[in-house]
Amino acid sequence: MSTPITAELLSIGTELLRGEIVDTNASYIATQLPLLGIELQRMTTVGDNLDQLCKILRQALERADVIITSGGLGPTEDDLTREAIAATLDETLTIDHELEKNLRLMFSRSGREMPPHNIKQVMIIPSAKSLLNPRGTAPGWWVEKNGKVIVTLPGPPREMTLMWQNEVTPRLKTRFLTKPILARTIKSFFVAEATVAQLVEPFFNVENLTVGIYAKPDGIQVRLIAYGNSAKELLDDSERKITDLLSPYVWGKDNDTLPGLVGLWLVKNKLTLATIEDMTGGLLSDTITSTSESRNYYRGGLIATNNHAKISCGVPEETISKHSAVSAEVAEAMAVTVRNNLTTDIGVSVTAIAGADSKQPGLVFIGIADNNGTKTWQQQYQIGRADTRERAAIAALFRLRERLIELNLVE
Amino acid sequence: MSTPITAELLSIGTELLRGEIVDTNASYIATQLPLLGIELQRMTTVGDNLDQLCKILRQALERADVIITSGGLGPTEDDLTREAIAATLDETLTIDHELEKNLRLMFSRSGREMPPHNIKQVMIIPSAKSLLNPRGTAPGWWVEKNGKVIVTLPGPPREMTLMWQNEVTPRLKTRFLTKPILARTIKSFFVAEATVAQLVEPFFNVENLTVGIYAKPDGIQVRLIAYGNSAKELLDDSERKITDLLSPYVWGKDNDTLPGLVGLWLVKNKLTLATIEDMTGGLLSDTITSTSESRNYYRGGLIATNNHAKISCGVPEETISKHSAVSAEVAEAMAVTVRNNLTTDIGVSVTAIAGADSKQPGLVFIGIADNNGTKTWQQQYQIGRADTRERAAIAALFRLRERLIELNLVE
Repeated sequence: MSTPITAELLSIGTELLRGEIVDTNASYIATQLPLLGIELQRMTTVGDNLDQLCKILRQALERADVIITSGGLGPTEDDLTREAIAATLDETLTIDHELEKNLRLMFSRSGREMPPHNIKQVMIIPSAKSLLNPRGTAPGWWVEKNGKVIVTLPGPPREMTLMWQNEVTPRLKTRFLTKPILARTIKSFFVAEATVAQLVEPFFNVENLTVGIYAKPDGIQVRLIAYGNSAKELLDDSERKITDLLSPYVWGKDNDTLPGLVGLWLVKNKLTLATIEDMTGGLLSDTITSTSESRNYYRGGLIATNNHAKISCGVPEETISKHSAVSAEVAEAMAVTVRNNLTTDIGVSVTAIAGADSKQPGLVFIGIADNNGTKTWQQQYQIGRADTRERAAIAALFRLRERLIELNLVE
Repeated sequence: MSTPITAELLSIGTELLRGEIVDTNASYIATQLPLLGIELQRMTTVGDNLDQLCKILRQALERADVIITSGGLGPTEDDLTREAIAATLDETLTIDHELEKNLRLMFSRSGREMPPHNIKQVMIIPSAKSLLNPRGTAPGWWVEKNGKVIVTLPGPPREMTLMWQNEVTPRLKTRFLTKPILARTIKSFFVAEATVAQLVEPFFNVENLTVGIYAKPDGIQVRLIAYGNSAKELLDDSERKITDLLSPYVWGKDNDTLPGLVGLWLVKNKLTLATIEDMTGGLLSDTITSTSESRNYYRGGLIATNNHAKISCGVPEETISKHSAVSAEVAEAMAVTVRNNLTTDIGVSVTAIAGADSKQPGLVFIGIADNNGTKTWQQQYQIGRADTRERAAIAALFRLRERLIELNLVE
């Protein structure tokens, strides 16, 4: 690869230095830059202090091709990002009357007059072009000077991310992207991050390919980015090889979500689903209902956190007393019970031991009852109560996916 | 106040620059430093690059009293934090035999031999003392030289936070804390962050007091930190005044949690609870069961995401057809139904419209049925599907808290 385009990111705001806000903008932008062939070299967080801001801006301009700032564009006197850029580039801030008109319109539409101090949000320097912010009062800036680019964005994530997609990405592409660039994400589950890293290691040094490994609640993701004229072939080839290496664990790619995939298969097969859970306490049903499409197949669920609740909905008392509440037998009975109670095609159950005070914390049983019979699975986690809950709920959905594949109910 | 002790934080790892990991260590440490009277001035994230690391360390040592590093202590050749500090301070890394013995023991206890490259994790420089890491293989460092302190911690958050509490906090206190320092957090709900900021503004410039405002899923928190010999009086006085200003919204302080508080009151009054929810899909039961104490009062819940499920568990069909599924009448009927079904003292319901395709997205009804009758509440959110779900589930718990207060069931 030729010399890469380099970037630095400045997160601006005293509230960040006090930990009042977790800086999700930084990791968002860090994730996006490789997709534009830009290499992020440094991220700096500073308070609302003009001297410090100017010093850091000047140093960053010496090191990197692109400087991205986030924050410090509010209407108060603490917000100094515009002032700092103007001072660093030795330019003068003046009111942009077009921006002023738009901002006054935005206020009058919500039935208010523009407070006088908001005027500072429509000030701009000669080498900056404004970037539209449909969700807030602070326009961004796109500055080009002496071969360097400064991108200035507001701090609130929902304003920043929309502007990144609509305003910044196309401009950075036009300005810097000289060769094709393509990305793909491979999604896996039931495999450790270290194992994925080891299996994927041979791809770390392939020319024109960047490999990133991301641990997410629904498993380990491998993101491939291929550059250059053979990007498509390189990406397809690498994806095929990595998918082979990880094959028993791979469940999807790119924008696939687990409830989305499973839901699609259920709807295509006109199957309905119900759930029953104890220690996960609603996390399984929550994961399913997080997409609005769930209403097409999900019929409801039961939270049965104790024996009384399990028995009152139909789990036989003797199954619990004979095998204990966290057992394959009870998981099976729970799945059968909820399938009958809510008259669905499929019932899924999770029963687990959470407390550190019990003999075997992290023990999880998953049960599925469907038109072909019942099946149960056992897992053992050693990751504490909260993580066990989260992992067990997602594992139940993965077992449902497995079962649908086994029954040939997959598109 | 006298000149504050200043700190800089270095987050080290190329994976951070690619956005593979969100840097929760940075915001954690940023939250903790004010409690030690230390002012964080800058946070920098850099990749695993020895030259850059040395340059940044040298600059940071010129500016700040305390440098905290996180990451780059692994066993691979990419992990260069130790090497960078040694080079910057012009010292030589040698094996610490006591640390080596402990690390070999740690490996043999898990039935493995120590891989040869892990030896680098027990190397140390003369001016460093090691910090115990009970959860990982990388000890930390406490370095004092030329009046400056360098604290070196591993990147994995569960290792870092435990070491911060056990090893770093006591040492920083001993080294820098010359005057009393006390903190208190006031927790509010059903109030906007901007409103809290406005009401609290007069306290921003009080001498020896630091005020931070944090937006959390369970509401807006105001954190007060008071310094100096009158810290206790200043803190108590400020807390009283701010609690008065925010009074209808304040629900707790410090380590109070909403399910914890409500649960405590229920247990003291020997009351049992059941829930039924539709659009929140398990988030309400999940919030309740996130603490293991919930087993002492929570009897279970129903997820009734559609009319079929609501009717099959006992909500009258005509109530739904007459008033629609998202109405005060149905919320009331749901609460009564779940209270009867699970034979509890209290039933709580949430019914809401989530989809953007419906007439009134963000409309939420909460119902409570108890030994004294029934009550319902209506809310309207304009924050999108996922946030409405989260907010509605927490709002239901707040309404339960309100109801318990109304019925004089509060400690």
